Amino acid sequence: MSLILHEFARSGNCYKIRLLLAHLGRAYERHEYDILNGETRTPAFLEHVNANGRIPVLQDGDHLLPESNAALWYLAEGTRFLPSHAFDRADALRWLFWEQYNHEPNIATLRYWATYGGGWDAQPPAKQAQIADKQAAGEQALTLMEAHLRGRAWFAGDAFSIADIALFAYTHVAEDGGFDLARYPHITGWLGRVADMPGHVRITD
Amino acid sequence: MSLILHEFARSGNCYKIRLLLAHLGRAYERHEYDILNGETRTPAFLEHVNANGRIPVLQDGDHLLPESNAALWYLAEGTRFLPSHAFDRADALRWLFWEQYNHEPNIATLRYWATYGGGWDAQPPAKQAQIADKQAAGEQALTLMEAHLRGRAWFAGDAFSIADIALFAYTHVAEDGGFDLARYPHITGWLGRVADMPGHVRITD
Repeated sequence: MSLILHEFARSGNCYKIRLLLAHLGRAYERHEYDILNGETRTPAFLEHVNANGRIPVLQDGDHLLPESNAALWYLAEGTRFLPSHAFDRADALRWLFWEQYNHEPNIATLRYWATYGGGWDAQPPAKQAQIADKQAAGEQALTLMEAHLRGRAWFAGDAFSIADIALFAYTHVAEDGGFDLARYPHITGWLGRVADMPGHVRITD
Repeated sequence: MSLILHEFARSGNCYKIRLLLAHLGRAYERHEYDILNGETRTPAFLEHVNANGRIPVLQDGDHLLPESNAALWYLAEGTRFLPSHAFDRADALRWLFWEQYNHEPNIATLRYWATYGGGWDAQPPAKQAQIADKQAAGEQALTLMEAHLRGRAWFAGDAFSIADIALFAYTHVAEDGGFDLARYPHITGWLGRVADMPGHVRITD
C-alpha cells in the first residue's frame, strides 16, 4: 500500500514517524501543512484528513491514522522495532503513553512556544502562567528518563524500539525549549546511541 | 499469574482497567492509595511501584506496568476487546492516545479540581487560569466524539473494544467536571450501550 505522511516537518511528532520509516526502509510521500497558518484547521482538512485538526496523520491507502504514537505502533507491528515478549511490548506502549502525557506537553510545548510559536513572551497570559509548571514537569520527565537509563541501553526490552524513537523525537531538541541536556549524562549517551543507529535520519532531513 | 491493581478507586484511569478486567472475568487484588495524601509520592512507592508517582499501575507477577491505556492493551491482547484487523487495532490505539491527550487532561482534570481536588476556587492561580481553555477543549473533545458516533455504534472497528472502555471512563462522569452531556445525544446513546454490556461494572463498584 502507498503511504502518505501528512505532516509539519519541524514537529517532533511527525519526525518520529519519518525516523521509523527510515529504519524500516519504507517509501512514502510527504504532504506538508503550515500549522502556523491554520492549514490543519481548514474545512477540507477536518473533513478529509483529521477531524481533530492535527498532524501527523499517517495515510495507508484509504485508511487515515491520526496520533503519532499510534502510527509508530502500526508501522512497527511484526518488525524488530517492537519487543517480541508481551510484557515488553506493553512496556514500550507505556513509554509511548508517558511521552504523550508527561514529556510532550511540557518539553515540546515549551519548544513550540519558544521557536516557531513566536517566543514565550508572545503567548497569551493563560499560557505564560503555565511556563513555570511546564519547566518543572519537563525536568521531572528528564529526571525519570535519566534514572531509567542508569544501567540500561534502551527504554523497553533490551533492544532499540519505538519507545526509543518516540522519546528521541522531542528529547534531542529539548534545548530549544530551554532544557539543559548536559545535566543528564545518561540521556546524552542514549541520544548518541540512537543517532548512531544505521539508517538514522535527522529532524531536518 | 496473579494480578494486582495499584489504584485510587475514584480515578477514571483506574476504573477503566477494572471495567476491562470485569469483562474478561479475571480475578485481581486491589491496592488502594490515597493520592490526596501523597501516598503515590512516598519513597517506597516511587522505588517499588512507579517512579512516575502515579496510579494506576498494573502488576502481573513481578512485572509492573504504569499508564492506564498500556494496561488496557496488555490485558486485551489476544481477546475480543482488541480488533482483529491491523488497521482497526491501530485505530483503537489512536483513540487511546487521543483520550490521554485531548480528553483526559481537560475533562478529567476539571472533574478532579471540582470534586476531590477541593473545588475550582481552591486551585492555585496557574491552574485557575487554565479552566476556560480546558472547558473549551473538553467541549471540542465531546464534539469530536459526538460526530464520530453519528452512524456508528462503537469507536474502533465494528465492535465494543478497549477504545470504548478507555473513553467511557471519564466521559460518563463528565458532568462532575461541569460538562452537560444532554447536549450530546450520540454520546448519551453510546454510554447506554456500554453500560448495558454483559459484565459491566460501575466506577463505584
